[in-house]
Amino acid sequence: MVSRIGKEIEISPVELASQIAKKVKINLASGTPDPKKIPLNDIREAYTEVIEEYGAKVLFYPGAGGQEELIQEIDKKFLNLLGITKRKDEKIVITSGAQHALELIGKYFLENDVIAVENPTFIETFNSLKLRSSSIVPISLDYDGLNVDELEDILKIVKIKLLYTIPNCHNPAGVNISECRRKRLVELAEKYDFYIIEDDPYRPIAGEVPPPIKNFDTSGRVIYVSSFSKIIAPGLRIGFIIANEQISEKISLLEQLDFSTSTINQYVVARLIRKGMIEERSKELFRYYGEKMKILIDSLRENGLNEFDPPKCGFFLLLNLNKNSWDVFYKAVEKGLSFVPAKPFFIRGGETMARLSISVASPEQIVEGVKILSDILAR
Amino acid sequence: MVSRIGKEIEISPVELASQIAKKVKINLASGTPDPKKIPLNDIREAYTEVIEEYGAKVLFYPGAGGQEELIQEIDKKFLNLLGITKRKDEKIVITSGAQHALELIGKYFLENDVIAVENPTFIETFNSLKLRSSSIVPISLDYDGLNVDELEDILKIVKIKLLYTIPNCHNPAGVNISECRRKRLVELAEKYDFYIIEDDPYRPIAGEVPPPIKNFDTSGRVIYVSSFSKIIAPGLRIGFIIANEQISEKISLLEQLDFSTSTINQYVVARLIRKGMIEERSKELFRYYGEKMKILIDSLRENGLNEFDPPKCGFFLLLNLNKNSWDVFYKAVEKGLSFVPAKPFFIRGGETMARLSISVASPEQIVEGVKILSDILAR
Repeated sequence: MVSRIGKEIEISPVELASQIAKKVKINLASGTPDPKKIPLNDIREAYTEVIEEYGAKVLFYPGAGGQEELIQEIDKKFLNLLGITKRKDEKIVITSGAQHALELIGKYFLENDVIAVENPTFIETFNSLKLRSSSIVPISLDYDGLNVDELEDILKIVKIKLLYTIPNCHNPAGVNISECRRKRLVELAEKYDFYIIEDDPYRPIAGEVPPPIKNFDTSGRVIYVSSFSKIIAPGLRIGFIIANEQISEKISLLEQLDFSTSTINQYVVARLIRKGMIEERSKELFRYYGEKMKILIDSLRENGLNEFDPPKCGFFLLLNLNKNSWDVFYKAVEKGLSFVPAKPFFIRGGETMARLSISVASPEQIVEGVKILSDILAR
Repeated sequence: MVSRIGKEIEISPVELASQIAKKVKINLASGTPDPKKIPLNDIREAYTEVIEEYGAKVLFYPGAGGQEELIQEIDKKFLNLLGITKRKDEKIVITSGAQHALELIGKYFLENDVIAVENPTFIETFNSLKLRSSSIVPISLDYDGLNVDELEDILKIVKIKLLYTIPNCHNPAGVNISECRRKRLVELAEKYDFYIIEDDPYRPIAGEVPPPIKNFDTSGRVIYVSSFSKIIAPGLRIGFIIANEQISEKISLLEQLDFSTSTINQYVVARLIRKGMIEERSKELFRYYGEKMKILIDSLRENGLNEFDPPKCGFFLLLNLNKNSWDVFYKAVEKGLSFVPAKPFFIRGGETMARLSISVASPEQIVEGVKILSDILAR
């Protein structure tokens, strides 16, 4: 007999589809940032520079909560660039990417509690919360993001501990929550006494999006999660949390249980921020991925595939195939195309939905992939 | 209301003493490897080399379970060098250091179970297990390590889920478990149906020590934990687990919850193993720390402080001060010396014990530190 988490953990369906995807020509499955856009030279130089400047210090054990040098750079520069307001009673805690942040938040808050989540949601990050909750309340999404009216109807009858949301460039739905809904979410959190986990890894490459939900929060009900995976590189495993003092303090202590955030990688990210890399890449990557997304949207429409909300940013578009998406998936793989059948992202429904990603595919591959998909669906 | 772990987590007493220690001249508190011995140039070169050789691949998301390149180097070279036998039904899982390994193991196995542990033990790593157990059975240590007779007496009346042990260069007790006791531990695990977590971070710098407990195991009851923190550098956060297929598979899956192990750092460690750095440093560091330990032992004896088991390896010596160690600690800090009052390492007793570390102090500082301690005790 093992723990509940030990019993219930299983291979992520996204991982499974990605493994199959590796074997095909056209990859519309993977959600990893485009390898062509990883700033290899800058990263290589940053490693050399931090070792030369700081010496052995960059290779000591990490302090729980994160290295002060990185916290300062985020506080001085990165938050400002992203339009994130940090209140005086809030602190930054460095984590090993957003996924680690979610695991720490889940570990801190949850012990068989009721939580609410967008339907669909990104199951991989959500898993840390799911495996520690007793029951999950799914809330519909539309083009303006999470349906706040539906949420309030549910809150009137169900007490929740927290709500998990991806406000920008939603994975897998590709939508952004509108500004007025963001305000409303904070009001609901106040009124019905729950916390909001705002998982916002795409903001650094999202272009013009509404302010973070946490900017509307005055009482510490929003825990903001960010990451350098999209704007720099996922292999560094650096992200952060902003939360009120009590929560950030406790989450720092919980980091003592895994001590997993590489010290030198924190210095490397601090260095890259200091050198102005983020400003530069933020616009460039928004433009780069935006162009690929436009190609996907145009191709789908040209092929008469119209059942989707056109994303304004990010990597993902959620398409209704009107057929079982696993059936379509296996046919697509035979033709050299992969995507992610989106059922696993849904708490309920979603059997005919497909997540298409533009992150690693070239423009030509996107066009060809849509053609393959359209041919399969036409039969 | 938060989770049990969220409620019970508190600042590590070792961290607290270390923070005070930073402000004094002579640091016999810190357990961090000597900064002078971190191979900065080799590490800097390895970062450059892996980026040049593999390109963007080293900066992708890490695969759950670890990068194949590192697993291969450990399997082909590192285990052999350390005298670790891996059975065919066992697998290596890469972690963000040994601490992360312990967190994953705790998360997998424990949900309010009874566990056994050496008294004293290293409270920081043990915390991941402690916070998930209902009750902790302390087992005495002597110069030959964990007292197996006492353990069996307890096993006759108490059912335990697992035993946590540090077999070599024990932290804080400085002892090694004898070979016959290692065999006996495996027999007991079989007979009384429990798992053994063998936390062995010091083996790479331990010189000649008995074979790992896991070498005597034939049925997958031992989970072996290792780390590159002492032999290379802690700031990379790379360690690993060896466990039977079922457990290693599940622990790989649990890594999907935090995805915290830096991809590029795994390639860097693989590169350093391949270049033969480990063989070279293994002997050199054993000699280096051994000389400092000898100075500590000789100084203590010269000053009439004899109540300790002389360590054969590692960083730590556990000294009985015969006075409340916190009282002595505060007086020592006033005189410019720090150590760790060892009470927090004990499940029971230990009020008069002090952990002295030779890892970062110079030979002169060790001699001076013992003189200060002896003066305080003589008063």
